[in-house]
Amino acid sequence: MHGGDIYTEGILKGKALLDFSSNINPLGVPESFRENINEAINNLDKYPDIKYRKTIEYLKEYTGQSNAYFLLGNGAAELLDLSISLTKKLLLVVPSFIEYEESAKKWGCEIEYSYLLPDFTIDYKDIKNKLGKCDGLIIANPNNPNGACINTEEFLDILEFGKNNNKIIIIDEAFIEFSGIKEYSVAKYINEYPSLIIIRALTKYFALPGIRFGYAFTSNKSIYERIKQIQLPWNINCFAEVAVKHVLFDEEYIENSNKWLKEEKNYMINGLKDLSVFNKVYPTNANYILCELKEFNCNEFYDLLFKAGMLCRKCDDYVGLSDKFIRLAIKDRTSNEELLKCLRNDRTSRFSNRNERN
Amino acid sequence: MHGGDIYTEGILKGKALLDFSSNINPLGVPESFRENINEAINNLDKYPDIKYRKTIEYLKEYTGQSNAYFLLGNGAAELLDLSISLTKKLLLVVPSFIEYEESAKKWGCEIEYSYLLPDFTIDYKDIKNKLGKCDGLIIANPNNPNGACINTEEFLDILEFGKNNNKIIIIDEAFIEFSGIKEYSVAKYINEYPSLIIIRALTKYFALPGIRFGYAFTSNKSIYERIKQIQLPWNINCFAEVAVKHVLFDEEYIENSNKWLKEEKNYMINGLKDLSVFNKVYPTNANYILCELKEFNCNEFYDLLFKAGMLCRKCDDYVGLSDKFIRLAIKDRTSNEELLKCLRNDRTSRFSNRNERN
Repeated sequence: MHGGDIYTEGILKGKALLDFSSNINPLGVPESFRENINEAINNLDKYPDIKYRKTIEYLKEYTGQSNAYFLLGNGAAELLDLSISLTKKLLLVVPSFIEYEESAKKWGCEIEYSYLLPDFTIDYKDIKNKLGKCDGLIIANPNNPNGACINTEEFLDILEFGKNNNKIIIIDEAFIEFSGIKEYSVAKYINEYPSLIIIRALTKYFALPGIRFGYAFTSNKSIYERIKQIQLPWNINCFAEVAVKHVLFDEEYIENSNKWLKEEKNYMINGLKDLSVFNKVYPTNANYILCELKEFNCNEFYDLLFKAGMLCRKCDDYVGLSDKFIRLAIKDRTSNEELLKCLRNDRTSRFSNRNERN
Repeated sequence: MHGGDIYTEGILKGKALLDFSSNINPLGVPESFRENINEAINNLDKYPDIKYRKTIEYLKEYTGQSNAYFLLGNGAAELLDLSISLTKKLLLVVPSFIEYEESAKKWGCEIEYSYLLPDFTIDYKDIKNKLGKCDGLIIANPNNPNGACINTEEFLDILEFGKNNNKIIIIDEAFIEFSGIKEYSVAKYINEYPSLIIIRALTKYFALPGIRFGYAFTSNKSIYERIKQIQLPWNINCFAEVAVKHVLFDEEYIENSNKWLKEEKNYMINGLKDLSVFNKVYPTNANYILCELKEFNCNEFYDLLFKAGMLCRKCDDYVGLSDKFIRLAIKDRTSNEELLKCLRNDRTSRFSNRNERN
């Protein structure tokens, strides 16, 4: 699934693993959530507002999309799944997050692929051509596992085509805050292009995978109503409601996160590029880096890294990627340093064992 | 939906309403959850175990069903909905919880009704007869809105028929702890009757509607796998995981709850029976009481009670009930007393206003 299974490999066996397979902001749970958790505890014995009116107000404020329709999900997973269920033939831009395809198969959608170009940028012309034969498109911005963002100007042509031909265009912006919402999000087109549905979450940037919260917004009332109709009531827990209220407006957390990523992305990209183990280290707009291996395949690399006490994301199960690819998360300096140190030793002793070193 | 909307009518307008429409244990959130909430906070920045192995172990221990297959849901609502989705023609024992029918309609199931007898006990023969033409049955134990439990011995005949004819028998035990799990649950038949799937939650008895957690268990691997396959990964948040670990084994909470209900059920039943406003007060195995009105219809009664600062559940939208029925939750002594006091005044001043009295 999302990479190394820390439970099977680690926690349940009592091992502490350094997990570079998981793309969570290493700054961790925002203080603003911890400080206000009593608001949730005080609401535990009441059903949430079935319309989640306040939560939607906060999302409108955060996104600046006061006219859009908002849907809430038990994680972005729910909204991705239900959006995909609206399509009969779905165009996937690949390689991309594996759950899109799993969800499409579950709903009996036909699948068409548009492959990224060899440098892992988007083939806009190919998407537009193939969208003619499909009724929906899903694409992540930034994409996973390579971290490249959509060029919003080049994408306009596809949006225009989608608008004129009644296509559903699903944009997974689960990692958009790492890229910079203002510069890279497709949200600025939401009112003009009713084909668009944008899905985000608290999971990655706000480091709250345990809370299970995602949201979607669209200017298309019909898409909104079709999804709303198949959702279950009370799908959002009261802790997620309180998180939305506070963390999206936690300027200190946002500032610190952006500062961290700016520094560590450079540090990691440069560090990885210096290593002989990789053929290529791809540029990224996110908090993870796709790397092409030189000698090892991803299973060998994974095993060596695992022996050293670390996990990475093997990429051989991504459509369009071979077993020569792995993905590494950008973590805090100490962890990043440890990874780089370990990988520098690959020629002599394979990778060094972090538990022995510690 | 579940009764008076405390958000529309109350909270969002800044009014404090005494809510007799909501069937939550008035003892509130168990201390054992509050005391251990840090376990959840410490796990917020990790994805939950995708297999929820520990949570399922606790459920096996609590239910004593170590051989059954367990499914977890974002509230019982998710599991009721997915269980219903497995049927093509569903037999509903009515009146019953309205979401069963909504869910069946959503999935395009045909619906057949078996009506409770005039005294609101179950017509076992009718169920067995009609089940022949259906592939599934859903029934609540205890039932909502009347609170009567299944007679497990009389039910055996239906289970036998279900087993021999490959029917799915869904038992909603959301309120079973209020009745007494040992005496009234159908769980004791789970290994013998693979038709059975039992669904429960933390919502009502453990007073955690805000946490969104339900579970289902069955000895039928095929039912288990069919539901599992359409569920989304990571559908349970980390707070619900911690709640399961602690509240199900909180003996003090369980003891206090049972003591409260024993006392207050008698107090309320006797108090309500003394009132001239009701034609009939039905016996209950749960924490709510169905009442038949004498002069008023349920809308008039609701409005009068609302003016007095209280909410009740109108029952005119239940299949098989008229506008002469309302349902009242059993709450703590102070609240129950206040309700009874108010209703005693109905002949002279209609109902008295609690805010004026306070």
